Amino acid sequence: MNNDRPTLYLFPSNLSDAAMSDVLPPVNIELITGVKHFIVENVRTARRFLKKCNREIDIDSLTFSVLDVNSDPSTVGAMLAPMEQGHDMGVISEAGCPAVADPGAYAVAEAHRRGYKVMPLVGPSSILLSLMGSGFNGQSFTFVGYLPIHGSERAAALKQMHADVMRNDRTQIFIETPYRNNRLIADIIATLPPSTRMCVATDLTGPGQRITTLSLGQWRRITPDYDKVPAIFLLYK
Amino acid sequence: MNNDRPTLYLFPSNLSDAAMSDVLPPVNIELITGVKHFIVENVRTARRFLKKCNREIDIDSLTFSVLDVNSDPSTVGAMLAPMEQGHDMGVISEAGCPAVADPGAYAVAEAHRRGYKVMPLVGPSSILLSLMGSGFNGQSFTFVGYLPIHGSERAAALKQMHADVMRNDRTQIFIETPYRNNRLIADIIATLPPSTRMCVATDLTGPGQRITTLSLGQWRRITPDYDKVPAIFLLYK
Repeated sequence: MNNDRPTLYLFPSNLSDAAMSDVLPPVNIELITGVKHFIVENVRTARRFLKKCNREIDIDSLTFSVLDVNSDPSTVGAMLAPMEQGHDMGVISEAGCPAVADPGAYAVAEAHRRGYKVMPLVGPSSILLSLMGSGFNGQSFTFVGYLPIHGSERAAALKQMHADVMRNDRTQIFIETPYRNNRLIADIIATLPPSTRMCVATDLTGPGQRITTLSLGQWRRITPDYDKVPAIFLLYK
Repeated sequence: MNNDRPTLYLFPSNLSDAAMSDVLPPVNIELITGVKHFIVENVRTARRFLKKCNREIDIDSLTFSVLDVNSDPSTVGAMLAPMEQGHDMGVISEAGCPAVADPGAYAVAEAHRRGYKVMPLVGPSSILLSLMGSGFNGQSFTFVGYLPIHGSERAAALKQMHADVMRNDRTQIFIETPYRNNRLIADIIATLPPSTRMCVATDLTGPGQRITTLSLGQWRRITPDYDKVPAIFLLYK
């Protein structure tokens, strides 16, 4: 509990099996150990993460509210009830940075509306790590989330992204459900010019980390297999 | 030195006066202590950062090549010469994550072309921290860098960003030279609808951290003063 406004801490969680000391600043562990009320994307992974942060944490004494893709944003206000009583709270995503590529932003927006302090903490983000590792333009970039799944819509989205690369010199970052990765790669190779460069990054921060940047012409020749491997994709010229 | 391919480490540096343990995982300090050859945006800040990481580092035994906004990208190959001899190298930006909002990506791209390993490390990024802390959509966002400085071009860029917010539900992130912050805020208020929300974040990770999210109508009433304060700006609906 703070002596001034309560704080909503945004705690990044691990992306891989890496040790916590490889991916989180020590202050995160210290702070998370003091928080008793959490808003989490997935209770099971959040409990596991908390135990990995500090085995001394008494998980059963904590409260968890679930904020995930199925949550109605209008229920977020009620989740912040402990803050009304002066308690700090923490947000934990399923993997990586809360409020980025997950619904945690609803909790942050509500905290701002209520005048609470918001404290984002440093930690692993597959978007940022893949951008750093890609060699693509990091001075202008877009994260677009998931692309449309179906043929003509997907082709249109890819062409629009390619146009944005060429017109605005802007790196395009996107994700896919892992079992559809190979389909996505085939669609990209079939749709965009072979000189376009693509980076695929897997197991970021983990022991199997691979960051591969090649032209689509080169990707076509190596017939890559990323089936069921969590991956992030980047396109650039 | 590695027993396999040499590695280009991307070492994030501090954004603020925060202790290293508040912003960097312990492994970063361990790894940076073993690297002897660096590509840096600014030698003076890099030396200061290295000393802050570990006072035991003998700075005078290290080599530094400068890769900044004035560098010719064709000179980057020569900077990687130590890797040809099997040495690992490190990239350090003036502040935050190398290869994001700085020219470090040229070194990363060249390392990929030469088949070296690229290892991005976790650390503070004003782009990511401000996005987390803003409460704006983190499932789709664009970092556009600097906006045009002059009247009609700037207004056109702002209107285009606003259109992207409305059409693609996409958060817009941008920066400004600190002494022009107040001018930028006035231009935004004058150009976009008052219901548009703007987040301004300053001194991220530092003791004076402020993350303020308000509608433009509210911003207009508080006549904000961000003159000469390093800040990052976000727009959303």
